[in-house]
Amino acid sequence: MDAAQTLNATLESHHPAAAACLSRVGKRMFFPMGIPAQAGEAKSAAINATIGQLTDGRGSALPLPAISKHIANLSLEQTTLYTPQGGNKDLRAAWLAKLKTTGDGPMTLPFCTVGLTHGLSLLADLFVDEETDVLLPNPGWGNYDLIFGVRGGGRIHRYPVLKNDQFAHDAIDDALSAIDTKGVLVLNFPGNPTGYTPTAAELKPWIDAIQRCTKPMVVICDDAYHGFLYESGLQERSVFHELSQTPRHNVLTAKVDGATKEMCFFGGRVGFVTFGTDGATADALEAKLKGMARANISTASATSQAMVLSALNNPNLASQQSELLELGRDRYLCLKDALSKAGLSCSPFNSGFFALVPVNGDVDALRKRLLKRGVGVVAFPQHKAIRIAFSSTAIEDIPVLVTTIAEEIENLV
Amino acid sequence: MDAAQTLNATLESHHPAAAACLSRVGKRMFFPMGIPAQAGEAKSAAINATIGQLTDGRGSALPLPAISKHIANLSLEQTTLYTPQGGNKDLRAAWLAKLKTTGDGPMTLPFCTVGLTHGLSLLADLFVDEETDVLLPNPGWGNYDLIFGVRGGGRIHRYPVLKNDQFAHDAIDDALSAIDTKGVLVLNFPGNPTGYTPTAAELKPWIDAIQRCTKPMVVICDDAYHGFLYESGLQERSVFHELSQTPRHNVLTAKVDGATKEMCFFGGRVGFVTFGTDGATADALEAKLKGMARANISTASATSQAMVLSALNNPNLASQQSELLELGRDRYLCLKDALSKAGLSCSPFNSGFFALVPVNGDVDALRKRLLKRGVGVVAFPQHKAIRIAFSSTAIEDIPVLVTTIAEEIENLV
Repeated sequence: MDAAQTLNATLESHHPAAAACLSRVGKRMFFPMGIPAQAGEAKSAAINATIGQLTDGRGSALPLPAISKHIANLSLEQTTLYTPQGGNKDLRAAWLAKLKTTGDGPMTLPFCTVGLTHGLSLLADLFVDEETDVLLPNPGWGNYDLIFGVRGGGRIHRYPVLKNDQFAHDAIDDALSAIDTKGVLVLNFPGNPTGYTPTAAELKPWIDAIQRCTKPMVVICDDAYHGFLYESGLQERSVFHELSQTPRHNVLTAKVDGATKEMCFFGGRVGFVTFGTDGATADALEAKLKGMARANISTASATSQAMVLSALNNPNLASQQSELLELGRDRYLCLKDALSKAGLSCSPFNSGFFALVPVNGDVDALRKRLLKRGVGVVAFPQHKAIRIAFSSTAIEDIPVLVTTIAEEIENLV
Repeated sequence: MDAAQTLNATLESHHPAAAACLSRVGKRMFFPMGIPAQAGEAKSAAINATIGQLTDGRGSALPLPAISKHIANLSLEQTTLYTPQGGNKDLRAAWLAKLKTTGDGPMTLPFCTVGLTHGLSLLADLFVDEETDVLLPNPGWGNYDLIFGVRGGGRIHRYPVLKNDQFAHDAIDDALSAIDTKGVLVLNFPGNPTGYTPTAAELKPWIDAIQRCTKPMVVICDDAYHGFLYESGLQERSVFHELSQTPRHNVLTAKVDGATKEMCFFGGRVGFVTFGTDGATADALEAKLKGMARANISTASATSQAMVLSALNNPNLASQQSELLELGRDRYLCLKDALSKAGLSCSPFNSGFFALVPVNGDVDALRKRLLKRGVGVVAFPQHKAIRIAFSSTAIEDIPVLVTTIAEEIENLV
């Protein structure tokens, strides 16, 4: 058996659903025991001539001063030299410790990715091909189509998140019937563009439907906006933890999250993929992911990784994050208030960065009229709605934003 | 016609070879006019509620102090907010200006990638599938197999770089005959692991063979080690420039390079893809690349990109780079001298980071014996050689390194 076949055999005996869900590329992927492995063994050699870096020969970095002048309070080795495949080990451990504060089901060591998009893309590489039915939220992030459909080649289906301004409690039961041989289901709370997070009671029929499903499937929890909740009583921790609480062997659970929104480090491009499993399955999936990333980007930026690691160890992190959460909440409350005063109807929202305003008429025409009045929003003609990113709107601008939208919607008719 | 078909039609009429070389995924890829496009139009709106970033609402970043304390002498907007798809525009322009100092053939705006691996991987996504014959140097970087073969699904062929310790002048003529319908040819000078760069005269039969080829093909110049030349008379500028000097419509030329080695910023993960073409072909390829990257990683780290941009604009960059080049040359000369004194034979090398020492016998056993004596090298059993990364060896260690290798090779027999 070659290396890929050995990994596949491990998955078949320890997690048949993970094995059954692998794409054609996922089946042939492995992590070669090449230079990174030999370099690992030579780490403590007095003379280490294994790695193609230009160093002082004693393990210290020799960055150009033109680069290093921009790095403060971090070691130059950690920021300018290669990190191991899969990411900075201390960072991965710190992210795992963070996840363990919200759930205690089986969990793999978080695998560091280039932001959340890359986590979704690696999972698509491993689990999506022409034989995969991919179930995506509607409304949902447009880039899912590009990742799982155009690039991944999967059959795309959309399931509703809301029906008549209520959480669509039977959506997943219906959606799962579309799976022919194997599936990928993406859950996204708080949602983009809905800004909606369900309560635990609302979520229960979705969890139950997933637990009942008899087709092999990968459930991906896209937790990009984790933590940005503005009302009480909402499902606080990721659905990932709910699903891995009672793991089922026909479901492989994956969590995609990262520093992008949670730590307000949009440009840093640091994300993670974590599976809700352990033991031999975890090792085999780590090898598959490592090979896939090695053949794609090698690793995320060491500089960004070191900054995120330092922030995770910063005793002031929690208070700095709550300040930003409060800012988000203030904008959220201001927007709710302004919408109500203007008598403008809006899809239910309670979290995240966005709100959706339904529009009767030409949505893109409305967007262009608003642009002329100095107001930028995103038009979703397919959802007959515009999206307001209140996360990037100053609180004092929100009332004007809303009255301008209300006026132009009036003018549309 | 949908967006992808429009791009394909453009390529068919303006660059038939580029069109003929597209993979199945490459054919269906496009860049959707979604949120990034709408956000672009709203850039000067007084109230811009388009992008899902948490900002002050006036375009300024609100990073956590736990993150921003590590950034020095750079704007927080440039380092912590999203960069445009394809990369920081000033950075792309600065890299193009740099390329134009060495060649003046047609050239696209360099597309920013997550290091060089990502550039190769994006090109594999666009141009490699089961119908592609991929011609790779031998000896060559092991990760090419993972990128183009295991992940990309192409048919891998290896062509020799050296024959009997001479540059293999007829290698490409022979190699090109393996192309069935469409091909990808990877050229890598200075080479990993050979450390070899040919002279212009040695290179000429390779260029001629490429110009004569009648099958559609993409030539990828992997210029990772660009600039690290230690002897005079070698081919100084990239083969990319030689090929785009007299562009042929059955050959699409691509250059993959970046800050990783050239600017000694290994962990930064900033690379570029540039095509040797212009006009409508350039626009169509930019849209294909943008879509592929958007479905994969979105963008490279803004932090790393801003640092590379600043370094490119630094008046001391050239002198700082030559210091590192001199360090590399000193180690190179010391290694040549030590090899000769020890009577140890070595494949010809004159550039880059590596040298290959041929081994009669069990190469991995030799590696393990050396490890026991505190010396780390990489074993290539398939090439019957070990690789010495003199780039990461202190000059005072090189004589001991060589005598230890010589002794253990003696002991092997």
